[in-house]
Amino acid sequence: MTTIFDAPEDFATTALAGFATIYSRYVRHVRGGVVRSTKVSKGKVSVVIGGGSGHYPAFAGYVGPGLADAAVAGDVFASPSTAAVARVCRHADQGGGILLGFGNYAGDVLNFGVAAERLRAEGIDVRIVPVTDDVASAPMDAAAKRRGIAGDLVVFKIAGAAAEAGMNLDDVERVTRHANDRTVSFGVAFKGCTLPGAGGPLFTVPHGQMALGLGIHGEPGIKEEAIIPAKDLAKLLTEKLLVERPVGTTKVGVVLNGLGATKYEELFVLWTTVSTLLKGAGLDVVAPEAGEFVTSLDMQGCSLTLLWLDDELETLWSAACDTPVLRRGATFATEPATDALDDIEGKMVFAPASEASKEAGKCVTGLLSGIAAALKGAEDELGRIDAQAGDGDHGQGMRRGSAAALDAANAAVAAGAGAASVLAVAGDAWADRAGGTSGAIWGLLLRSWSNALSDSDAIEKDAAVRGARLALDGVTRLGRAAWRQDAGRCADPVCGNAGARGRFGQNAVGRLVTGG
Amino acid sequence: MTTIFDAPEDFATTALAGFATIYSRYVRHVRGGVVRSTKVSKGKVSVVIGGGSGHYPAFAGYVGPGLADAAVAGDVFASPSTAAVARVCRHADQGGGILLGFGNYAGDVLNFGVAAERLRAEGIDVRIVPVTDDVASAPMDAAAKRRGIAGDLVVFKIAGAAAEAGMNLDDVERVTRHANDRTVSFGVAFKGCTLPGAGGPLFTVPHGQMALGLGIHGEPGIKEEAIIPAKDLAKLLTEKLLVERPVGTTKVGVVLNGLGATKYEELFVLWTTVSTLLKGAGLDVVAPEAGEFVTSLDMQGCSLTLLWLDDELETLWSAACDTPVLRRGATFATEPATDALDDIEGKMVFAPASEASKEAGKCVTGLLSGIAAALKGAEDELGRIDAQAGDGDHGQGMRRGSAAALDAANAAVAAGAGAASVLAVAGDAWADRAGGTSGAIWGLLLRSWSNALSDSDAIEKDAAVRGARLALDGVTRLGRAAWRQDAGRCADPVCGNAGARGRFGQNAVGRLVTGG
Repeated sequence: MTTIFDAPEDFATTALAGFATIYSRYVRHVRGGVVRSTKVSKGKVSVVIGGGSGHYPAFAGYVGPGLADAAVAGDVFASPSTAAVARVCRHADQGGGILLGFGNYAGDVLNFGVAAERLRAEGIDVRIVPVTDDVASAPMDAAAKRRGIAGDLVVFKIAGAAAEAGMNLDDVERVTRHANDRTVSFGVAFKGCTLPGAGGPLFTVPHGQMALGLGIHGEPGIKEEAIIPAKDLAKLLTEKLLVERPVGTTKVGVVLNGLGATKYEELFVLWTTVSTLLKGAGLDVVAPEAGEFVTSLDMQGCSLTLLWLDDELETLWSAACDTPVLRRGATFATEPATDALDDIEGKMVFAPASEASKEAGKCVTGLLSGIAAALKGAEDELGRIDAQAGDGDHGQGMRRGSAAALDAANAAVAAGAGAASVLAVAGDAWADRAGGTSGAIWGLLLRSWSNALSDSDAIEKDAAVRGARLALDGVTRLGRAAWRQDAGRCADPVCGNAGARGRFGQNAVGRLVTGG
Repeated sequence: MTTIFDAPEDFATTALAGFATIYSRYVRHVRGGVVRSTKVSKGKVSVVIGGGSGHYPAFAGYVGPGLADAAVAGDVFASPSTAAVARVCRHADQGGGILLGFGNYAGDVLNFGVAAERLRAEGIDVRIVPVTDDVASAPMDAAAKRRGIAGDLVVFKIAGAAAEAGMNLDDVERVTRHANDRTVSFGVAFKGCTLPGAGGPLFTVPHGQMALGLGIHGEPGIKEEAIIPAKDLAKLLTEKLLVERPVGTTKVGVVLNGLGATKYEELFVLWTTVSTLLKGAGLDVVAPEAGEFVTSLDMQGCSLTLLWLDDELETLWSAACDTPVLRRGATFATEPATDALDDIEGKMVFAPASEASKEAGKCVTGLLSGIAAALKGAEDELGRIDAQAGDGDHGQGMRRGSAAALDAANAAVAAGAGAASVLAVAGDAWADRAGGTSGAIWGLLLRSWSNALSDSDAIEKDAAVRGARLALDGVTRLGRAAWRQDAGRCADPVCGNAGARGRFGQNAVGRLVTGG
């Protein structure tokens, strides 16, 4: 279990700060993430990756020459906020556009997606690639619904190598999507992980059993079987992936990943048979890696990832990189970055607003004040409901988010903002402080709604209704949800994407949706 | 617990083979260890390190430019045999002499010590430095009795940097001893580790408790206390070491080590306070490392190691290195080694022997045949006795060792060897195949005994008696034991050194002594 921490809620941010101190030769700490501490050439495509914490070295440990330019880190197993993603991207931007990489989970899809929209509106070209390597989470013909697990490393490595090689954003996106299409993983778990401060593990596996098709957030797998010898385990993992081998493939990149408490020497034992089986299948193994690359706190288990190589992918997979966790080939001539890391969104400067819109902004603030008061009163009840399926922090998140929204709105009013700006910054603050999926949804609702308002007019009835429609459309589109007119409810809601279906919804992903 | 393995007894060798395949850019696999796979300049001092397996990345993960030239790996938590140490050293030798580094445990002291004597007899200059960093294992005024834990990394790094810088063997030995004198560690354990195939952990810590002063072979620590927040744990570890701060020291090298199931993010959290405390004590922190460097299978816990720097040590601690686990600064221009890795002791070529000595050799073989038969018959009984205090494999080791000795003696007789040579190779084979401490002791006894014989004469009664005395002296000297004439038994036997005293003798070190 996770044992070393102070306040459990500070675990992720403190860990990130400590990491950044130890590895200052690679990274600089910015709020919500890290960016390279070495100079990056202007015009290079920036590869920005991220997700929840608790997966080290994913994702901050991948930052360095030849791999990622920056990483965003949310709370433990919770998506980073939209504001954090956008903020880290602004720091990383070199004018060549941004490739955003993350695992295919509801909260990440939403937060990285909204951040991408916001950055595009600021004139930064952003592309997103959700990683979908886990063959256990959806069948081959629904591969886009699969979760991202240890394939994250592989797909991000290809993106980083492509950007380092000077490809433009179109090409980096193309080859990263191609790498994702050709990356498959399958894993097993022997023992669940324990969140900092939690009384017990997120799931347990009966003694002598293993769970097949594990997730990396304490999702317990799709079925349980008796633990088998290393040779048989190697066969199980390898054969499960060879089924999806593209015709004509003769080379593979390989990652044998430990989840935390499964040790290197066990992975090396497993590797001896895996490599024999791959060779036996007529595959050349290129630059294999065995170690801890995408962990799940102290979970015990492992996964095998294969990247079906073609010439382009082989070149990129084998290319040099130098990061805290993955180093290949020659080092890079680097020099320390010298630009200041101001908190880019910290300045509140608003376009001039009409008096009518300023008054309307005050009205928005009044409404937010009511919302914040109501949610403060409902905190315990929301927490109680959430605890039935999640970790019981939904009330806390809603209280924190609505209070932050009110504070931001008040500050905007004081700075002379009009109604549209007041509602927009309130949404951003909600998403940033509440965190998780619910924060992202509420931030998105308010910000989308603000697009129907203006800083020059009072709020008309039509604009308010139009805003409500924009808010609904925003959540529907970015949450990849569909509104069923006939049934009057979501048929495929936010929680219906790859990471949150069926059994997977019960643990961390459920937590992301309900309370994170 | 350790979960991925085939036959438990093959765990260490299979893991080493898998490691060598994955990291072939750094190492080549030789029987019992690994050597660099890249060319090393002639005349450079070779740094050869090692110990039991189960501690990855210690020790094979430290091999590469700027650090070790080779690593010897015994069975899990058991010393490598004398023959394995000697064999790996012969592969690593570049004519500049060899610095042998290992943790201060009974079995390692014996096997590395005997190997050093043997290599010296072959004309290779060898120095030994046992690492003694664990402040919990003996008081400051008996520092030479301390065990080696995560300080291994620090001391070996200094040795490797010194050798890479071109220092001669005298200087490499001097600075390595100096580094060891200035390296201190202290650790805590939250949960014990489980050997491959074992039914339960080597020790348990009550829920909510932590064991202070842990060892890295499942030794449970010197006392138990309630688990405390990270800030307090950082204070506990740091203050315990600051007591031993040499006057005038203003800089420290630091390693914050995870034992296996304690994860990086926990170490990063701990680091934030450790670094603050060190700075508060007026110490500049130089090139700190936090991660898994000396593990104990899947043990949960961590340790803090400080290296009190002076100018020379700072230069060496900060120097570039490139290994599977530790990489600093620029990479090294390397090219693959091309020399063949023949099994160096595989050829049996003997000096011409007299007919009388050849006959005496056959007599030795007859005696060994009787010993092997007796030990085969006693295998179960020896195992039963061993299981009371150790892991029950003593009978197996004695049967295997004596059978190997007989085989080697027969082969030597067939190759025309005289009595001295027959007994010497029999001893070597016993040590090599039995493994552990008992194998080392028996190998040493027979080889020392052979020094009283010759290949030119028959065996006289006096020579036989002189051989017995040499055998006793050899074990006494290399085991750092004292023969008490008054009591007629060992007062400070092999098991009386730092690692095997008091409580520590009950687990792995006890196992080394009794059955390994």
